[in-house]
Amino acid sequence: MTFIDQWLRSDIRNINAYHVPSAKNMLKMDAMESPFGVPEELKDEFLEYISRSEVNRYPDASAEELQATLRNLMGIPKDFGVLLGNGSDELIQLLSLACSSGDSIMSFEPSFVMYELVSKFAQLNYHGIPLDENFDIDLNATLLAIKTKKPKLIFIAYPNNPTGNAFDYDVIREIIQSTDALVVLDEAYYAYSERSFLTEIDNFSNLVVLRTISKIGFAGLRLGLLVGSEETIEQLNKLRLPYNINILTQVSANFLLKDSQRIVSNAKIIMNERGRLYDELSLIPGLTVYPSQTNFLLVKSDNAKSLLESLKESGILIKGFAIGTQLENFIRISVSEAKENNVLLECIKDYYG
Amino acid sequence: MTFIDQWLRSDIRNINAYHVPSAKNMLKMDAMESPFGVPEELKDEFLEYISRSEVNRYPDASAEELQATLRNLMGIPKDFGVLLGNGSDELIQLLSLACSSGDSIMSFEPSFVMYELVSKFAQLNYHGIPLDENFDIDLNATLLAIKTKKPKLIFIAYPNNPTGNAFDYDVIREIIQSTDALVVLDEAYYAYSERSFLTEIDNFSNLVVLRTISKIGFAGLRLGLLVGSEETIEQLNKLRLPYNINILTQVSANFLLKDSQRIVSNAKIIMNERGRLYDELSLIPGLTVYPSQTNFLLVKSDNAKSLLESLKESGILIKGFAIGTQLENFIRISVSEAKENNVLLECIKDYYG
Repeated sequence: MTFIDQWLRSDIRNINAYHVPSAKNMLKMDAMESPFGVPEELKDEFLEYISRSEVNRYPDASAEELQATLRNLMGIPKDFGVLLGNGSDELIQLLSLACSSGDSIMSFEPSFVMYELVSKFAQLNYHGIPLDENFDIDLNATLLAIKTKKPKLIFIAYPNNPTGNAFDYDVIREIIQSTDALVVLDEAYYAYSERSFLTEIDNFSNLVVLRTISKIGFAGLRLGLLVGSEETIEQLNKLRLPYNINILTQVSANFLLKDSQRIVSNAKIIMNERGRLYDELSLIPGLTVYPSQTNFLLVKSDNAKSLLESLKESGILIKGFAIGTQLENFIRISVSEAKENNVLLECIKDYYG
Repeated sequence: MTFIDQWLRSDIRNINAYHVPSAKNMLKMDAMESPFGVPEELKDEFLEYISRSEVNRYPDASAEELQATLRNLMGIPKDFGVLLGNGSDELIQLLSLACSSGDSIMSFEPSFVMYELVSKFAQLNYHGIPLDENFDIDLNATLLAIKTKKPKLIFIAYPNNPTGNAFDYDVIREIIQSTDALVVLDEAYYAYSERSFLTEIDNFSNLVVLRTISKIGFAGLRLGLLVGSEETIEQLNKLRLPYNINILTQVSANFLLKDSQRIVSNAKIIMNERGRLYDELSLIPGLTVYPSQTNFLLVKSDNAKSLLESLKESGILIKGFAIGTQLENFIRISVSEAKENNVLLECIKDYYG
């Protein structure tokens, strides 16, 4: 037995490290990335902007300029507080650290895996309330769980990943009202969704909204933000590691996010493509496509595993789910540009012959 | 009482947020930054390198290229494992998360404040063993504390911040041998130090070495690394958030750290200047200068507070310490280029008339 085997908590030792599949030379339609890079005509200005940053100096600890740009892009009211993290992952972890060991965390199943993983790290008790057969929230089961488990923190992905749907708005309001927990609405896919809980922060003191720029074109920058009332964010900010957002993230996001028109129009392109993919895939017998308010589609197929392998052989990476789980007969497809979506459609049609 | 006041753990609520002084238009000699930016002649190549990165795609989750560059720069043997973080801060936090709530963490006083802060977040019991009057480790007190407190984790800054000295090498070896704790040698200042514990990883299975590129010219990039045996790092890696190192950090650090000759020669310049500053400051009556193996000098002065204010008025930022603490009569000066050091010397000489 090695030193570390004896030293490390067994619950961590037994975790399998998060696996990221190799994507070399593959068409990436597995990770909800945007297909749109930095536009050629902006590249020079972008680099000029970056070149002015002093990498030998610590970054602005409060990232004020970037905060202002994010507020402007997302329409975040002046009297709300904003807390930045290296991806929403770091903010999910920060929220878990605010709890006490042994506290309960609640979310839904299936949803974003990081809620459970991070709970484990912080030694919290994770409760995943099963969604119903349409992947909607079972309100009664949820209210009961709130009563019995008394969660300290509730994560609600809105819209939900990996199912793509947005839960009923009023059901979520009822959940927020019925609990003493801090409720975290994770709006990673806000740009592709019809509604948002952002302005509800004024109505519910126990509500915070989590966002990221990963799904709107900037997954590489790993920048997430938590929005809440000023006093909530001021307190949670004490758990933030100082200087957590590095200088290149600050300057590049600050530059790239100012182009809000392009971000909105890129999202529109993806939503149009989502509609087209939904229609075309729905025509294929053997596939059930689920409605989506995100930049991906959840698709049911009895041949999920073999379809995924066939696409992989054709150089297309999509997301499958582990055997034995609720979603083993599903695949998740990130919506891309028309050209790439067409390649995918071709391959799927070929597969079904 | 607001929601968050009721909701948040009182120990976090009572923390004062980490304060970063404004440095606008100031000569920054307070934060151990390197004065050397990206050389003009490399800028074009640097930007060209950055421009090839796809910010819309998630970064390489294992940052393989950057890992290889760091191994090469720091002479890290192939059979050691390397774990990357957003600054060493994220890695200190990761180590604290590996512990169980209520575990003890040990370090020395005064040392890097983050060890205690991060312990607090993770609800661990922090024990700071006082250094002796020369800021050396009191071995007997330390061995006794190891026996009675049974720490899970021991942080040793080598060399130490904010005192600047490197503790006795054999004393540290004895500490490592006498404990079941994971001992973390924090070598943030390795480039300015005579010795390192890196190769001792082969001799002690409970030793890991923490480093950062913040003090060698790249504080803005916020990149730290933890080095240990392969199996230790493989296990600790399970606590790392996937994709934690963003794409711009990866490409820029990968480019800038390949220039190892410049990094070494810049460190030599600073060490020469450190010697000169040490000599010149030692000549001033009223100042006691402490030996340093870092890129800063700890200086004792009965007029510490007024000297600091006087320098601030002249546009020079140095670090002071809170009244009521052991170091209230001390200042800490980051060593800079000759020109800036001369400005500082002028001002200090003026102050002492």
